[in-house]
Amino acid sequence: MPVPGPGYSITVRLDAPASASAAGDLTSAVGRVGGVLTAFDVVESHGDAIVVDITVNVLSADHADDITKALDTLPGVHVRKVSDRTFLMHLGGKLEVSPKVALRNRDDLSRAYTPGVARVCQAIAANPEDARRLTIKRNTVAVVTDGSAVLGLGNIGPAAALPVMEGKAALFKKFAGVDAWPVCLDTQDTDEIIRTVRALAPVYAGINLEDIAAPRCFEIEARLREQLDIPVFHDDQHGTAIVVVAALRNALRVVGKPIEKCKIVVSGVGAAGSAIIRLLLRKAPGDIIAADINGIVHPGRDGMDGNLRWVAEHTNKDGLTGTLHDALVGADVFIGVSAPDLFGAEQVETMADDAVVFALANPDPEIDPLEAQRHAAVVATGRSDYPNQINNVLAFPGVFRGLLDAQAHHIDDEMLLAAANAIADVVDDRLNASFIVPSVFDAAVAPAVAEAVRAAARGEEVASAV
Amino acid sequence: MPVPGPGYSITVRLDAPASASAAGDLTSAVGRVGGVLTAFDVVESHGDAIVVDITVNVLSADHADDITKALDTLPGVHVRKVSDRTFLMHLGGKLEVSPKVALRNRDDLSRAYTPGVARVCQAIAANPEDARRLTIKRNTVAVVTDGSAVLGLGNIGPAAALPVMEGKAALFKKFAGVDAWPVCLDTQDTDEIIRTVRALAPVYAGINLEDIAAPRCFEIEARLREQLDIPVFHDDQHGTAIVVVAALRNALRVVGKPIEKCKIVVSGVGAAGSAIIRLLLRKAPGDIIAADINGIVHPGRDGMDGNLRWVAEHTNKDGLTGTLHDALVGADVFIGVSAPDLFGAEQVETMADDAVVFALANPDPEIDPLEAQRHAAVVATGRSDYPNQINNVLAFPGVFRGLLDAQAHHIDDEMLLAAANAIADVVDDRLNASFIVPSVFDAAVAPAVAEAVRAAARGEEVASAV
Repeated sequence: MPVPGPGYSITVRLDAPASASAAGDLTSAVGRVGGVLTAFDVVESHGDAIVVDITVNVLSADHADDITKALDTLPGVHVRKVSDRTFLMHLGGKLEVSPKVALRNRDDLSRAYTPGVARVCQAIAANPEDARRLTIKRNTVAVVTDGSAVLGLGNIGPAAALPVMEGKAALFKKFAGVDAWPVCLDTQDTDEIIRTVRALAPVYAGINLEDIAAPRCFEIEARLREQLDIPVFHDDQHGTAIVVVAALRNALRVVGKPIEKCKIVVSGVGAAGSAIIRLLLRKAPGDIIAADINGIVHPGRDGMDGNLRWVAEHTNKDGLTGTLHDALVGADVFIGVSAPDLFGAEQVETMADDAVVFALANPDPEIDPLEAQRHAAVVATGRSDYPNQINNVLAFPGVFRGLLDAQAHHIDDEMLLAAANAIADVVDDRLNASFIVPSVFDAAVAPAVAEAVRAAARGEEVASAV
Repeated sequence: MPVPGPGYSITVRLDAPASASAAGDLTSAVGRVGGVLTAFDVVESHGDAIVVDITVNVLSADHADDITKALDTLPGVHVRKVSDRTFLMHLGGKLEVSPKVALRNRDDLSRAYTPGVARVCQAIAANPEDARRLTIKRNTVAVVTDGSAVLGLGNIGPAAALPVMEGKAALFKKFAGVDAWPVCLDTQDTDEIIRTVRALAPVYAGINLEDIAAPRCFEIEARLREQLDIPVFHDDQHGTAIVVVAALRNALRVVGKPIEKCKIVVSGVGAAGSAIIRLLLRKAPGDIIAADINGIVHPGRDGMDGNLRWVAEHTNKDGLTGTLHDALVGADVFIGVSAPDLFGAEQVETMADDAVVFALANPDPEIDPLEAQRHAAVVATGRSDYPNQINNVLAFPGVFRGLLDAQAHHIDDEMLLAAANAIADVVDDRLNASFIVPSVFDAAVAPAVAEAVRAAARGEEVASAV
């Protein structure tokens, strides 16, 4: 049974009797219907009655109703108001734009704005690269989406995608001091998206594409990289690939296998899967077998698009055909970025000894991680409630910090691999089967990634700890 | 002779003797070549020598060189470094994007980002208007330019326009708490600009067009107003018109003339001039005579574009032809948004008694304001170094604050007039010939404008003090 987490947390304000047993009655009522009580605050006290805020993690709107009812039907208890902490946090949005300069008086105004600003404009007109010195371009990244593949929610459109892009921008600032701005486009036409991003590029020193559906995302990324002189990064592809490669490097250290001898099965060949395969190929693995809903990807398969054909040509050395289950037989590594509940412990048992299983479908993995653990040596998921969370937050803030610091005009696989190595290196001698990637709150990660990417962008040699 | 202002201010760091006369020698050297010394800071002292930072307002780069040389050639003085305070202020840009929510721990993260954010996305997908409650859209305005008519600098392009748009965004926040974001477009094609702004509109609750050349700006504004469900404001047009109408209302109070009896000459029929004419027509003036580089606008003139034809049809009741000088004869009001030095005191003398002269060309007005004062009763300029500065900062922050607070889907002339009345009302009984508009630092202006615009947008009756 799933356990309620803090992503859905309600605060119930209620009147209750001031009796000694009241608190116990309230908390056990919450527990009986499966709520997780996280805070109990008395906000008013009137002799024989108290007003209490009870904060409870819940599973769903129905669950929240159950809990509210369980409380409201207690003798002497009356629920006044139920508020949703997640919605409260989002009221008015999660970002603000603030001046970094003082505007107290006429002198400030005449420097930050007219007439003084005219000389700064002229300097940039004379030397356009000065925009990276004298404007926000230096530190600013666009988080661009068309709202077509938002989280697991699918095509919900640009307005509904905005809370995710705001959150992303907030993480950019929090973890790497990058000023990121949400660009939610009211179009899902490939040409139009490209044209729009090109038109708004002058303000930005980097483009982070986000939650754009495959296969459109590949063309958008490729053509923007060609047309723009700033780096274009698609987090669903490159961010995921970086963290997977980092985690895999450490997982293989745990089991003592060199990647050159490993057979790696990748389930899901959308944005994330394709990018993982492309980056893994740079590490010369023994073999990669890609599989999707139609089974193993091989050159003889019908109806493949350009992306799938590329994958078919660059993987599957032995020309395997069949299902995902067939692919798993004898495999050293499983990497899933696909769909829930595709296999069980019995398939893991068919894998090679000391198997590595990354079941990253979110929120429900390809295999229950507890099942996987019965036969695998290392298990990772995309979830925060199991060890080894593969989370893009480990990559994108530091990657862009490094790109901005290097004033990079493009991004390439060397920089992605440098980022992966830096993440893996942070784990260092703390490595074990339950700790193959650092915590997302490890303050050492973003600076290490930034430094590695900066050096790679500058063409410097980077030493890796391993 | 022009006087150096704080918009161009240098700091000269130099070694000087520690003698009693050194300070006097330095300051008089600056004065001899016309610099205005604003600060003298000893940053180091070593027995017989001091290191000093001298801050000086200058006129130009050549003037800065003259001052540096004048200092460097003094006996015992050696200039170490000259820095430009305006450029120092612009290093790294003038804006930052910050989270408004805490991201300290896993619980915060799971509410502001995944998995909690998914429920907020779903709420907006189900009810798109919720974007105004649960995202930054509620308080966010795009400052959009194509860099084609930036300040007086002309077509310097989107990158060079960015410092102005950043300054504008900073003023939005400072004066009205509005989160504004610079959108500098790498295209000057009308259709492309419209398409791009439409594509990025989901994030914004208002569009502020800025420094887009006429006549393109008229079509862009008109078509965007048609296609978007958020207000579109062109500051060069509407912002200027609001402040001019406000100033004129008070100027006519000073001279005791009703606008219905006034002959008003408008010089310049670009973005600002056209918008001023359109808004003034709502006040039923006696007559308006428009003039540009080709003389008085009248229906018989050749080669007029749509905008000029509209002006010709709606002004100049008596079908005057001739030059600007001809137009001025007997005029009660001159409003110039055109070019420097178009006429002198002798033309003002031909105007009606108690003439009002707004010479707003910047930085050099249509007539030297000191000349104008010889025969005019009220004189205003766009400059900060004369009384009665006509500055858009009086309008745009409050206008958008009001539009956002009303969750307005459009903007119309009633709201512009409400804003103008609110600005004029702030002056109240402090009115005199040198004080027809409030100071840009008057904290009462933006809230008054916001309230007036909000009420007008909601269709409420607004009482004006006059």
